Amino acid sequence: MSEDFQPLDSGLIPRFAGVPTFMRLPQAEPEQVEVALIGVPFDGGTTNRAGPRHGPREIRNQSSMVRRVHHATGISPFDLVRAGDCGDVPTNPLDLGDSLDKIAAFYRRVREASAVPLTAGGDHLISLPILRGIATDGPLGMIHFDAHSDTYDSFFGTSRYNHGTPFRRAIEEGLLDPKRVVQIGLRGGISDASNFDFAKQAGIRLIFIEEFEARGVDEVMAEARAIVGEQPIYVSFDIDVIDPSFAPGTGTPEIGGITTREAQRLVRLLRGLDIRGADLVEVSPPFDQGGITALTGATMMFELLCVLADSIATRRPASAPQTMLA
Amino acid sequence: MSEDFQPLDSGLIPRFAGVPTFMRLPQAEPEQVEVALIGVPFDGGTTNRAGPRHGPREIRNQSSMVRRVHHATGISPFDLVRAGDCGDVPTNPLDLGDSLDKIAAFYRRVREASAVPLTAGGDHLISLPILRGIATDGPLGMIHFDAHSDTYDSFFGTSRYNHGTPFRRAIEEGLLDPKRVVQIGLRGGISDASNFDFAKQAGIRLIFIEEFEARGVDEVMAEARAIVGEQPIYVSFDIDVIDPSFAPGTGTPEIGGITTREAQRLVRLLRGLDIRGADLVEVSPPFDQGGITALTGATMMFELLCVLADSIATRRPASAPQTMLA
Amino acid sequence: MSEDFQPLDSGLIPRFAGVPTFMRLPQAEPEQVEVALIGVPFDGGTTNRAGPRHGPREIRNQSSMVRRVHHATGISPFDLVRAGDCGDVPTNPLDLGDSLDKIAAFYRRVREASAVPLTAGGDHLISLPILRGIATDGPLGMIHFDAHSDTYDSFFGTSRYNHGTPFRRAIEEGLLDPKRVVQIGLRGGISDASNFDFAKQAGIRLIFIEEFEARGVDEVMAEARAIVGEQPIYVSFDIDVIDPSFAPGTGTPEIGGITTREAQRLVRLLRGLDIRGADLVEVSPPFDQGGITALTGATMMFELLCVLADSIATRRPASAPQTMLA
Amino acid sequence: MSEDFQPLDSGLIPRFAGVPTFMRLPQAEPEQVEVALIGVPFDGGTTNRAGPRHGPREIRNQSSMVRRVHHATGISPFDLVRAGDCGDVPTNPLDLGDSLDKIAAFYRRVREASAVPLTAGGDHLISLPILRGIATDGPLGMIHFDAHSDTYDSFFGTSRYNHGTPFRRAIEEGLLDPKRVVQIGLRGGISDASNFDFAKQAGIRLIFIEEFEARGVDEVMAEARAIVGEQPIYVSFDIDVIDPSFAPGTGTPEIGGITTREAQRLVRLLRGLDIRGADLVEVSPPFDQGGITALTGATMMFELLCVLADSIATRRPASAPQTMLA
Amino acid sequence: MSEDFQPLDSGLIPRFAGVPTFMRLPQAEPEQVEVALIGVPFDGGTTNRAGPRHGPREIRNQSSMVRRVHHATGISPFDLVRAGDCGDVPTNPLDLGDSLDKIAAFYRRVREASAVPLTAGGDHLISLPILRGIATDGPLGMIHFDAHSDTYDSFFGTSRYNHGTPFRRAIEEGLLDPKRVVQIGLRGGISDASNFDFAKQAGIRLIFIEEFEARGVDEVMAEARAIVGEQPIYVSFDIDVIDPSFAPGTGTPEIGGITTREAQRLVRLLRGLDIRGADLVEVSPPFDQGGITALTGATMMFELLCVLADSIATRRPASAPQTMLA
Amino acid sequence: MSEDFQPLDSGLIPRFAGVPTFMRLPQAEPEQVEVALIGVPFDGGTTNRAGPRHGPREIRNQSSMVRRVHHATGISPFDLVRAGDCGDVPTNPLDLGDSLDKIAAFYRRVREASAVPLTAGGDHLISLPILRGIATDGPLGMIHFDAHSDTYDSFFGTSRYNHGTPFRRAIEEGLLDPKRVVQIGLRGGISDASNFDFAKQAGIRLIFIEEFEARGVDEVMAEARAIVGEQPIYVSFDIDVIDPSFAPGTGTPEIGGITTREAQRLVRLLRGLDIRGADLVEVSPPFDQGGITALTGATMMFELLCVLADSIATRRPASAPQTMLA
Repeated sequence: MSEDFQPLDSGLIPRFAGVPTFMRLPQAEPEQVEVALIGVPFDGGTTNRAGPRHGPREIRNQSSMVRRVHHATGISPFDLVRAGDCGDVPTNPLDLGDSLDKIAAFYRRVREASAVPLTAGGDHLISLPILRGIATDGPLGMIHFDAHSDTYDSFFGTSRYNHGTPFRRAIEEGLLDPKRVVQIGLRGGISDASNFDFAKQAGIRLIFIEEFEARGVDEVMAEARAIVGEQPIYVSFDIDVIDPSFAPGTGTPEIGGITTREAQRLVRLLRGLDIRGADLVEVSPPFDQGGITALTGATMMFELLCVLADSIATRRPASAPQTMLA
Repeated sequence: MSEDFQPLDSGLIPRFAGVPTFMRLPQAEPEQVEVALIGVPFDGGTTNRAGPRHGPREIRNQSSMVRRVHHATGISPFDLVRAGDCGDVPTNPLDLGDSLDKIAAFYRRVREASAVPLTAGGDHLISLPILRGIATDGPLGMIHFDAHSDTYDSFFGTSRYNHGTPFRRAIEEGLLDPKRVVQIGLRGGISDASNFDFAKQAGIRLIFIEEFEARGVDEVMAEARAIVGEQPIYVSFDIDVIDPSFAPGTGTPEIGGITTREAQRLVRLLRGLDIRGADLVEVSPPFDQGGITALTGATMMFELLCVLADSIATRRPASAPQTMLA
Repeated sequence: MSEDFQPLDSGLIPRFAGVPTFMRLPQAEPEQVEVALIGVPFDGGTTNRAGPRHGPREIRNQSSMVRRVHHATGISPFDLVRAGDCGDVPTNPLDLGDSLDKIAAFYRRVREASAVPLTAGGDHLISLPILRGIATDGPLGMIHFDAHSDTYDSFFGTSRYNHGTPFRRAIEEGLLDPKRVVQIGLRGGISDASNFDFAKQAGIRLIFIEEFEARGVDEVMAEARAIVGEQPIYVSFDIDVIDPSFAPGTGTPEIGGITTREAQRLVRLLRGLDIRGADLVEVSPPFDQGGITALTGATMMFELLCVLADSIATRRPASAPQTMLA
Repeated sequence: MSEDFQPLDSGLIPRFAGVPTFMRLPQAEPEQVEVALIGVPFDGGTTNRAGPRHGPREIRNQSSMVRRVHHATGISPFDLVRAGDCGDVPTNPLDLGDSLDKIAAFYRRVREASAVPLTAGGDHLISLPILRGIATDGPLGMIHFDAHSDTYDSFFGTSRYNHGTPFRRAIEEGLLDPKRVVQIGLRGGISDASNFDFAKQAGIRLIFIEEFEARGVDEVMAEARAIVGEQPIYVSFDIDVIDPSFAPGTGTPEIGGITTREAQRLVRLLRGLDIRGADLVEVSPPFDQGGITALTGATMMFELLCVLADSIATRRPASAPQTMLA
Repeated sequence: MSEDFQPLDSGLIPRFAGVPTFMRLPQAEPEQVEVALIGVPFDGGTTNRAGPRHGPREIRNQSSMVRRVHHATGISPFDLVRAGDCGDVPTNPLDLGDSLDKIAAFYRRVREASAVPLTAGGDHLISLPILRGIATDGPLGMIHFDAHSDTYDSFFGTSRYNHGTPFRRAIEEGLLDPKRVVQIGLRGGISDASNFDFAKQAGIRLIFIEEFEARGVDEVMAEARAIVGEQPIYVSFDIDVIDPSFAPGTGTPEIGGITTREAQRLVRLLRGLDIRGADLVEVSPPFDQGGITALTGATMMFELLCVLADSIATRRPASAPQTMLA
Repeated sequence: MSEDFQPLDSGLIPRFAGVPTFMRLPQAEPEQVEVALIGVPFDGGTTNRAGPRHGPREIRNQSSMVRRVHHATGISPFDLVRAGDCGDVPTNPLDLGDSLDKIAAFYRRVREASAVPLTAGGDHLISLPILRGIATDGPLGMIHFDAHSDTYDSFFGTSRYNHGTPFRRAIEEGLLDPKRVVQIGLRGGISDASNFDFAKQAGIRLIFIEEFEARGVDEVMAEARAIVGEQPIYVSFDIDVIDPSFAPGTGTPEIGGITTREAQRLVRLLRGLDIRGADLVEVSPPFDQGGITALTGATMMFELLCVLADSIATRRPASAPQTMLA
């Protein structure tokens, strides 16, 4: 569509050249785009190994490999919507509360600009202020890919806000409708048998890796789509849902995860849902090996962008033709 | 159960803090515990790339990520049995025979203390002196996960004791009953077409990766359980049975291996067997990438611990209630 | 067969010892062997990340792990054919055209010597001059394993020869019969929806990863074998067809690839075809992790060697018994 | 001296064996020792690259290489004082203030036990709560080795406590006497020409790397000793004072630093001073290369221990002979 | 000076945040700035290990650590001149000649804009087209820091243009005045005793590392300054002049190099010379360790920028006051 | 001299091409050469971190960077003597005694062939069997560069042969004359104050790093040359004498070592001595970073080769002119 919001042409400028933006897109303000690619370089919610503060930069770097057209679905997102790199939220590594406020404020602006945010984290706590910024019309549903439920309670006595708690807080704050939340890929030991009680009692559908493997991608996604329905949803993709052989660079790796083939198929099956925002979190470059996790993250962001772009273009009113938007 | 043998609470003490013991357990003497986690830092039996001497330390390090309760089986081992870190056997890197003697002596003590050993190697030769120490009531059966049969004969002319020979020697010494031995995951080129003759003639059941893939985890384990029966067995888990994409840090990697999802399911299906000891060997930190192999090893040790704890608790006489043991 | 063309015996000389040749074979001239293992250290056709110029050396290094007998097929290639390490083609990193000429000339000599080349690349452009050297009796068929079709056109304006174009050029030059070409494992975004038009219009059978996964290895290979028939073919194996978790060290990694178990099964199903040459390309050591990609490459070369050796031995006239050749 | 507080004997137990404590010393309570080796795994004060939370663990690991007797000074610290590994302070990675309180409380206990703390950080902010814990008898002098003055003011608006501010805060709180503070090795660009104003106005003696190089170790240390005099001092050693070629694993590396030969000589020249505590901070394992920074840190801690032990033994009253303490 | 050309404020936006430009400067056109920071991602002139094509990106990344004011000289370049990131020259990795043309054209434009270029390479061949672009008023002098003279002749028969020949070609083309060229830091074995003949006969002053070490930085630079005099010069800094312990990530490392302390002092002593351009080349990220070479490169670029800014500000006519330029 | 014993020409065959031999020399039998480059891939004498068994391979790999003529001394060794790669001694990683015998036998053959061995280790224990092989005409003197004296006694109770004892054993066996032995660069903590007693009492001259630094290379070497005199000597170079910033890949790194500039100057000052053999040991690739240690080792071997070649050529009888030898 808009010729102004196209990636650099790799047939003219090599992929290793140039200042790295997300997918080699132009830098933009949220008000200029329909899909805002945003970095949230924050890992102050991490209880063990820090590092995702460096995620946006390395995902940008590896996203130089992203191309224009999806080989399987045929979606060509840059022909469907205006997308741009809206930069990083200026977080504060020394102050968790200040960072949460800055993130929420940034996403309120994105929401007001009617742009759909596609975020590169950052640790998973960032999903909470993102939801605070965009869930302004009532609670959203959510499809959540993760090794962990992230609906735990406090750590270290008093710390209610950390990367294990965002969705408990979001439910408590009315940002998510737990009846319309599905979590896929859960696994790994837990600290206490009661760890999933909150999620279950709230009505979240938890799909552990064993059930996922037994039923397969298609059946699981059919159920997930039925649960969230046609109402607006958020999509949160924690890179640790993918097995550490594909994505070692993350803070809480759990062996026995999903493959990238499964991950790609899962995301493609989001097509048609009313997605109001998506994030890809927990890429931790200091623990990565040769950039493979950032590459996986960048590629999954492209998968997400394709369904987002399709969703936006499909829902765009006929009276506002896409060719007019540029 | 015993409040004295509990891991550090990660809700109070971060996982990166503290002197790293296996699974953050207290250090203990074999006489104090029901399951003795032991390191055997020895790789003097290695014919090619050394390194597993550093295995116990890095497995301890990565085992800081281990938690309390198994997410799929619900087993909470530290509530079922007393388990502790019994330290490393003081091996001698300059003298293979001296090391074999020291290891065997250590495990005799463990056996006399009626503790079940769960060992982190070390190269695979260590299974031989472990068996010498614990197979004191007649030959054991064995379920053996490995890319290699390790029933070869000598190397370099006269070296009968190396990491390719432990189970041939164990059979010759009457420590294992070959009719009750199953080897799962075999693959990789061989030096000579006769390499498996000893194993086959002795009556070992060899399950190559191709058969494994064709039949699947459940069917393979059903057969394995039938073969070993209800008599006492040993479990030996060579990390190289897992594909090098998940576990690159090992001395003799063979592509085309099992996945960690398969590995976890295999070990869970050991539940209920009468396991008298288990080892996890051939983690080689100098060839690891970012600790992923040690993390895989530590997680598989937790899987093994769960079935061991369940086995011990189930067999514990009613007259010696678990709550009395503390 | 020939005692003169045997790998070093690892029971006498450790695998870490000695000047590393391919599979520890003797160095040889093409005229001395039936299978010529050749390195082509060239990456001047690479549009993004260079590195495969270092591929032959690291594949040689890792091929020290290769053994004599295939565990699943029982093929013992060094008992079937004379194979030797014929060294590296002396490429010119500063001059693409000069390198293409030198490579083609080298392979013409191999062809004239009636040796079957098994090549370690190098980037994928090298397949073009190899075909120029060996396709002297008319166009060959090809089974091609790759994430990319490599039938694109020019880059950067005028550069018709690069690692994305070899098979377009080969078809244009009459070296390949596109009706007898099958490409397996394709995936990854594309620059333009028309990227596959040339391949499709030429009659190449493109099998994307999604179709591959849906139908499985056996069915895909049955079709591929039917397409290429009994006429002579070339086999080209780009390491990037394998998922980057198994083979990160490559210039254009694409997530969601095939596993090594699938890759090994694919190659084994080449058995019986009339293979006139094979290559394994795009191993890029500077981007590898601990040599795992080179190890995967070396092992896949052994898989290829087994089918090549079997093919040669099977087709060898009864009047020229293999035992006479030594 | 005390036979109870001796490192493991590497002539009996290999250096790679055993649970890694600092210098292979016994674990101990502060009340049991004269020198308390303590880890403070905290990096919540880091403005850029986190990681030193993992410092204590890796320094313990590398300190397995530490031996008993100093080759140049002949000091044998374990024969002079009781030293033990007093574990890690249980910091809170989610709450900076809580962590500062916990650290200060721990060091008050150490102080009350009359043990001299030798600390492995952690980022440099930890020096502040350490000083709060031990500077109970009035302000201390300090010899401070660092690339940075760490007397800056707030970051990100309101964050007065971070790894660039500890000594400004310590001076403001009366924990340090700035007239008796010397900073050695300063270098690297600054954000504003006024960055050193506070330090200069307070009376700190700043010795930049250029002056250090011009005058040499001996002259610089002679001046430093004259400034701090015979009154009690603290020693703070930021690993980034050493050039990143020797110590790459740190959050704010600055090229052009001191060599390890210079660093060792600097620390040896602390001998005889009345040192009440010392720390070695900013070792950041996620950014280290093969453990070289942690090894450098562990070795520098041994150098510090030697001067501490000598200082303690020298000052010990004749009526409390060292041989009685065991 | 110009408030429009200031780096991001690290007191507001953390150094890990944001799209990485050189030194966090605004992106700009050459016509907007006095100093143009430019990347030339090209390594097609490399005879052995490629990689510097990735140099500009990683130098940008590491240059996030650069600050505003030089700690030793007090120069604050962003207060003296307008400097911006002018992006990368769109080189062609498949065509050496095309790349040389594109680079030369880009620098002609820079020259016409009266901006002084400060370049991040790229391999050393790029200095040739840079000189073609800027040496438009007659030959320049040059101070050249390098382990190699780079005045050799052809490689591989016919390849006259490669990273070992730029300055021979530049002299032949009249771009450099060899009588005003000084090369500092030369070392490493040579292919033939005649390798330096061209340089010597042309009148270049070659200062080998042995002479450098014997005479010291100050004396060497005094001579160099005398040789080049007050006429315009170019400064070329090959990262391999620095010892590989400080800068391992380069294509042709030579042990026994200069230290970073020496390197910084050398560059500071360029102050006052009439420098018309400078480059920092041969940073090769695929061979780097943890970014240390790119960090060294970025820091040396800041050192170069300081002397460039000082040179420009000093020579700026009084009638065009600096405060007017913004 | 001999055209048959020349390295591959890097102007024709790129340095990354070809099977890697030492310095790209032809493979040869000891009887064919005057200087025999030999690998001894053995680390069975290592008490802590194994790895030097992989040293010869990686040194060969990195030695592809070696060129023909020494830039400072002008020595062109391949014009002075016939040198070839005589392969690796076939050691036995499972049997220390067997390995010692095989090594000694190999070097007896070298000695009988009148070739001077230049060895790449392997751990330092290999110097003992080398001396057994070549010290056939009475004890040799030795100049020994090392961080450690390697004259200690047994480890782990009974192990008299390990990499800390070779020179004690060599003295006891009459292979070395301790009065003509100089050790340079000693440092690092020791296990007991008596550790150097044997060396001192035997009459070895020990030069610690502190004395070395105080006196400088020239003065130290003048004394060393005076001590060994004009009688035959052996030169042993342990890579750990060099600081770990330059050579991290070694089993027992000690900070505070010599620089490569110092190391090169030290070796150059061996010129003129009657050197009967030299080794470079303890390069441990599994602990190396990017090959820098192997590169340092390969370069130091070239430095050693230059003095060896000069020594041989100088001593060659006039009646056997060098041009006749080819």
